[in-house]
Amino acid sequence: MGLAVRADLVGKTPYGAPPSTTAITLNVDESPHPPSPALVSALQSAVGVAATTLHRYPDREALELRADLARYLTGRTGVPLTVEQVWAANGSNEVLQQVLQAFGGPGRVALGFEPSYSMHPILAAGTNTDWVGVQRPDDFVLTSELAVAAVEEHGPDVVFVTTPNNPTGTVTALEVIEAVCAASAGMVVVDEAYAEFSAQPSAVSLLAAQPRLIVSRTMSKAFAMAGTRLGYLAASAEVVDALRLVRLPYHLSALTQVAARTALAYADELLATVEAVKEQRDRIVVRLGELGLTSVPTEANFLLFGPFDTPHTVWSALLERGVLVRDVSSSQGLGRWLRVNAGTEDEPTAFLEALAEVLA
Amino acid sequence: MGLAVRADLVGKTPYGAPPSTTAITLNVDESPHPPSPALVSALQSAVGVAATTLHRYPDREALELRADLARYLTGRTGVPLTVEQVWAANGSNEVLQQVLQAFGGPGRVALGFEPSYSMHPILAAGTNTDWVGVQRPDDFVLTSELAVAAVEEHGPDVVFVTTPNNPTGTVTALEVIEAVCAASAGMVVVDEAYAEFSAQPSAVSLLAAQPRLIVSRTMSKAFAMAGTRLGYLAASAEVVDALRLVRLPYHLSALTQVAARTALAYADELLATVEAVKEQRDRIVVRLGELGLTSVPTEANFLLFGPFDTPHTVWSALLERGVLVRDVSSSQGLGRWLRVNAGTEDEPTAFLEALAEVLA
Repeated sequence: MGLAVRADLVGKTPYGAPPSTTAITLNVDESPHPPSPALVSALQSAVGVAATTLHRYPDREALELRADLARYLTGRTGVPLTVEQVWAANGSNEVLQQVLQAFGGPGRVALGFEPSYSMHPILAAGTNTDWVGVQRPDDFVLTSELAVAAVEEHGPDVVFVTTPNNPTGTVTALEVIEAVCAASAGMVVVDEAYAEFSAQPSAVSLLAAQPRLIVSRTMSKAFAMAGTRLGYLAASAEVVDALRLVRLPYHLSALTQVAARTALAYADELLATVEAVKEQRDRIVVRLGELGLTSVPTEANFLLFGPFDTPHTVWSALLERGVLVRDVSSSQGLGRWLRVNAGTEDEPTAFLEALAEVLA
Repeated sequence: MGLAVRADLVGKTPYGAPPSTTAITLNVDESPHPPSPALVSALQSAVGVAATTLHRYPDREALELRADLARYLTGRTGVPLTVEQVWAANGSNEVLQQVLQAFGGPGRVALGFEPSYSMHPILAAGTNTDWVGVQRPDDFVLTSELAVAAVEEHGPDVVFVTTPNNPTGTVTALEVIEAVCAASAGMVVVDEAYAEFSAQPSAVSLLAAQPRLIVSRTMSKAFAMAGTRLGYLAASAEVVDALRLVRLPYHLSALTQVAARTALAYADELLATVEAVKEQRDRIVVRLGELGLTSVPTEANFLLFGPFDTPHTVWSALLERGVLVRDVSSSQGLGRWLRVNAGTEDEPTAFLEALAEVLA
C-alpha cells in the first residue's frame, strides 16, 4: 500500500529484546525478586482507594509522588531536594524523551559515549535530534580528556553520561561529569538507572553547582518495579518547568502514581534485595575467572563476560540450555562480549553450569 | 540563568485546565460516575495478581489488552477487527503523539478544523510538525466542500477530524470523512473520544475501504476511566506496525494493562452511565431555552451554551457560586460561548440554578 511513514523509519524494526520463553531470563536487567506479599497487599489497598476516583483525571503535576521521590533521593544522597526539582514519567525512556523534546529537536545535537544505553540514540531519532556517538576506549572508562574533547568538537545541546554504564557496567567519576558540565553550553544528562547497585556517589551532589545538570533514575531496576514504569529525574526547578511544557497532560495515571508511592514506602525492603543481587554478581565474576573467562569491572546488576571469538554461538548454546543472556556483540566495541544479569541465587547457578557445559 | 530550551517553547505555559477546588467540576469532560464497588473490588483482585510480577517488564505489545479492545470495538460497531489492527497507549494524547511521530515531523504538515481539541496543535508542535488550522463555519459543522478544499489547498500529511467535536459537540457525517480520505494522500485521523455519547455510526466502519484511516478512542470519557489513562486506535495492521517503530518500549505499565482489561470486562456496567449522562445533557439543553439561552447541537457529554457578550464574566460568576465550567471564549470562533459538562443529576441542577441566578 505504501503508507507515507517518515522517511527515516522505513525498513526499521521496533526496539526490544526478544521476548523470553526460557526458564532463566538474564537478558533485560530485571530484578529477580518479586514484590513481597506485604507489598502486594499494600498495593491492593492503595489501588482500592485510588480506584474510587478513577473516573477523574489524575493529579497532572503528580505532586505527592514527586515529593516522595525527592524525599527518597535526599535520603539516599544526603542532598536536600524539593518537589520542584524532581520530575517523573512513564519510565526513564519517557523522562529522557521529554528532555530531548525540550532541549533537543530539529537542528540540535545530542551526544553519547558508546557503547551505552541503546535507547539514547533511538530517543534522539524519535525527537528529530541529531545523534553523535563517541566511541569509548577499550576499557569503556570515560576520561575527562576524551569527554571534554568530544563536547568541544561537537558542541552538543544534550550530552548523555550513563553511570554505571549499560551495557558495560563501568562507572564515570564525578570529576569527569564536572568537566563535561564545565565544557558544555547545553544540558548534561547523567543516566543513573543502575545507581543503587554502585558504590559511587550520585551526580545529584553536583546539582547545586551545575544548573544544566539532569540526573535521571528509574524504579525498574533496584526498586524491582519494572512493571510499574516509573522513571524520574532531579534537576533545577527551571529545568523541570521546561519539561512541563512538553509533557503530555495527565501523562502519569492515578494507578502509576499510587503504585510508585507505595513502592517508595517499601524502599528499605525493596532495596534490601540490592545487596543480594550484588553478591550474585560478584560470585559470577569469581566463577568466570575459574572458567578461564574475564569480565569488565562492573557496578551494575549485570556484567559483560568473554572474550569470545564467536559470541553468538555461545549465546545460542546457552539458550539451548534454557538460559537467556543478552547478545550485545553486534554493537561497536562489544564484538567479543556477552552480557548477563545477576539474578537470584538459582539463576546464576544455572547460568554458570550451562556456561561450563558450553565451554567444555 | 537562560537554559537553552527549544526556541518555540520560550514563553509558553503548560497545557491544562486550572485544577479544581470547587464542589461542582463541569470543565474537563470527566464522567461524574465513580467506579462501582464491584469494579473497585475487581480492580483490586486483578492488581493483586499483576503485582506479583511487577519486578518484570510488562508485555511490550500489550497483546491481551489490544485483543480485548478489538473485541469491544467489534461489539460496538459490528466491524470485525483483529488485535493487529488495534493499538493502545497512555491516553489518546500519547496515541496521537505516536501517529504524528510516525507520519508527521519536520517538514510535514498536520491539519485540523478549528475550533477543535486544543491538544492537536500542541501535539503537532511537540513533534515539530507544522500545523494548519482551518476555521469551521459559524455552525461548526464540517462539510465535504470545506474539508476537501482545505485538504487540496494544504496537502497535509495528517488530517484530524474530531467527531463528536470537542469543544462544540457537533458531529461529522461519514460521507465527509470518506471525502477527506479520497482527497488525502496522507493519513486521516478521526478522533472519536466522545463516540459512545453519539448516535452516529463510527468511522471504524470505513476502515476496510480506507487504508490511510485511523480512528482514535479513549477510556477517559464514556468508560469513566480518566484516571487510568488509556487511549487506543483502530487502523490497518500496517499503520499499527509503523506506530511500533516510534512507541517507547514498555510504554504501557502492567497495572495500566490489567486495569484497562478489567474495565473492559465491566463495559456494560460502565457504559450504562452513558445514557444517564445523555439525559442530563438533554435536560440542560431544554432548561437553557427556558432561560433564554441557546446551545450548539451536541452528541457529546458536554455542550456549548450562550451566546454571551461577556462570557468570562458569566464564567467567574458561576465559579463564585461553586460551579466550574470551561471558558472557551478566547478560542477563535467561540467568542460568545462557554462549555459545560453533563454530570450527575445533582451537578447540572446546581449549574442551572447558579446560571439562573447569574442571569437574573
